[in-house]
Amino acid sequence: MIYGHGDDTFRFSHIRTNFSSNIYGHADLSALKAYLAAHLDAIQNYPEPAADSLAALIAQHHAISTDNVLVTNGATDAIYLIAQTFARDVTHFSTDEPTFSEYADASILYGLKTRKNTETSEKTRKCLENPERTQESVSEFFRSFPCFSVVRWLCNPNNPDGRIYTPEQICEEARHSTLLVVDQSYEHYTQAPLLSPREALDIPNLLLLHSLTKTYAVPGLRIGYVTGPATLIGRLRAAARPWAVNALAVEAGKWLFSHNIRAIDDLPALLAETQRFAAALARVPHLHVTPTATTFMLVRCDTLTAAELKQRLATEHHLLIRDASNFPTLTPHHFRIATQTSEENDTLVHALRSIIIDDSF
Amino acid sequence: MIYGHGDDTFRFSHIRTNFSSNIYGHADLSALKAYLAAHLDAIQNYPEPAADSLAALIAQHHAISTDNVLVTNGATDAIYLIAQTFARDVTHFSTDEPTFSEYADASILYGLKTRKNTETSEKTRKCLENPERTQESVSEFFRSFPCFSVVRWLCNPNNPDGRIYTPEQICEEARHSTLLVVDQSYEHYTQAPLLSPREALDIPNLLLLHSLTKTYAVPGLRIGYVTGPATLIGRLRAAARPWAVNALAVEAGKWLFSHNIRAIDDLPALLAETQRFAAALARVPHLHVTPTATTFMLVRCDTLTAAELKQRLATEHHLLIRDASNFPTLTPHHFRIATQTSEENDTLVHALRSIIIDDSF
Repeated sequence: MIYGHGDDTFRFSHIRTNFSSNIYGHADLSALKAYLAAHLDAIQNYPEPAADSLAALIAQHHAISTDNVLVTNGATDAIYLIAQTFARDVTHFSTDEPTFSEYADASILYGLKTRKNTETSEKTRKCLENPERTQESVSEFFRSFPCFSVVRWLCNPNNPDGRIYTPEQICEEARHSTLLVVDQSYEHYTQAPLLSPREALDIPNLLLLHSLTKTYAVPGLRIGYVTGPATLIGRLRAAARPWAVNALAVEAGKWLFSHNIRAIDDLPALLAETQRFAAALARVPHLHVTPTATTFMLVRCDTLTAAELKQRLATEHHLLIRDASNFPTLTPHHFRIATQTSEENDTLVHALRSIIIDDSF
Repeated sequence: MIYGHGDDTFRFSHIRTNFSSNIYGHADLSALKAYLAAHLDAIQNYPEPAADSLAALIAQHHAISTDNVLVTNGATDAIYLIAQTFARDVTHFSTDEPTFSEYADASILYGLKTRKNTETSEKTRKCLENPERTQESVSEFFRSFPCFSVVRWLCNPNNPDGRIYTPEQICEEARHSTLLVVDQSYEHYTQAPLLSPREALDIPNLLLLHSLTKTYAVPGLRIGYVTGPATLIGRLRAAARPWAVNALAVEAGKWLFSHNIRAIDDLPALLAETQRFAAALARVPHLHVTPTATTFMLVRCDTLTAAELKQRLATEHHLLIRDASNFPTLTPHHFRIATQTSEENDTLVHALRSIIIDDSF
């Protein structure tokens, strides 16, 4: 999907606060920008074909091997590369909707068919419910049933609602998938325990996606990476395009991993503010807030549509929200917002209240 | 192919002059870098999903519609996107070797089979030799023979040897292909007449590739674009990944198209220097130079291999050349060089002479 995502500030002028992206918008990037300004000569040479020096730093950071890391042109590039590479091995894909639309888009682009979780056949149920099953026997079972070989995509924490899968749930999901891809783009937006790249290596059919966009608040740079077993990463590398990551992005990535100045410098405080913000929103008539374990959340308005709210907030209040109605299973009344400063959050609460109350007269 | 390309300066320290890339290395990028330094805030927001504002400037520059332009993450990204998109329509690909390896790599990755030009069947020959054939009848013929439906990749001027296809040859090639892709990455490295994006729109099965990397000497930024009929561009757009082009690359591209300060500011002078350089190389014992219409050229050494020459030039003289032995149909003795300043070119000639003469004792 090219259009229809959040952070479409380019469509509006004079946006004062952008709640539409999940990224915390108050990261201090001044040191990174100073570093980039001093390294603009990087544009004059080809980047390393596979961003190897950045991959080495990432591997070191996670205490894994460089064979377990592939750097990509943002996490979205990784999603398409995974769908492309494994489309020969699997026939179906499954997602837990609502979730990031690119999993389904990439899967469909490469010819995979949707498999709803409820479609588990009698034979599959028997295999899964066999008390003596092992991970190997289940994997073998799915391999022998190519009509049910499945790549399963999970977003953890999930976009757009901030729900969490526990490590135990991830392990269980891996047992029921040919390939499990867990997009941990928002891993630094929660305090819930998640699998580390090193822990995840124990699961032979699991790939984790990571996003520098979210961790360090640099969406313009396009840097993501995949971690996982060397055999799977090797197959992705064989299908990757050379020079996919811009030389300035490689330089920035190396600086970010060396300095590790996260987008959210005080996560517990921002999560607490999120809970306060959610409670304030829930007190606005006609608004319903989905509980979240992150700093972004899904909200539904009983009366106005998200499109109407977005338009009025942008033009009358210079505030941008994410119309979430194009997420499958959501309604025209759902929108998504990410917590910003408490003043900014209060401004949004007041603006929403005035628009909704105004509308009810 | 991830590794094995030129411009592998990252493998060596202390390279004084880089002849290994086809790009002229003396472009003055100071104004662009100053512009980027002042626009580093771009890293804080997602880029436009399809670099639309840059596409609009490109369309305006070529006097074509934005429906005829797709901006990509370098021309290499375009090659893979084209192979991916049209792999459902064609079964075979063909190239004129030696040429840029990514055409074959991308085609094979998406399941296409090589079709040598000599494989034209009796039936195909009859169709093509029919004096009453029209472009439509030929296209129809190929559509009705999916076993011979072909994407044909030409590089014009060609990498690595700088040879040229005339506009008449391009038109003729289009008649014999299901889809013809002409990579004009080096279009500003020659004075030979080439099809403009606007002229090329008259050919319904022709896509042109363009590279800001080469035109403006910014390989680190990764910006290329495809021009062609709206129907073909529309299909590419549907398969493209969102945010494929980094926000700084979009900003740089907009600046470059507004200012149009080419990598080679005096092309006639650099082409003349290339001819002088080629003549000087041809006077070195055991060197054979392939005639070129561009500023880069292919050279063969009778005695030493390109790998040996590359290693000795890099370690003893701090000069980098492109070992061209991995281009299909070339030999271990072929290397490629791009013209730099006359002093630098003379340094390479002397270094080659001393290594080759030293070796013959």
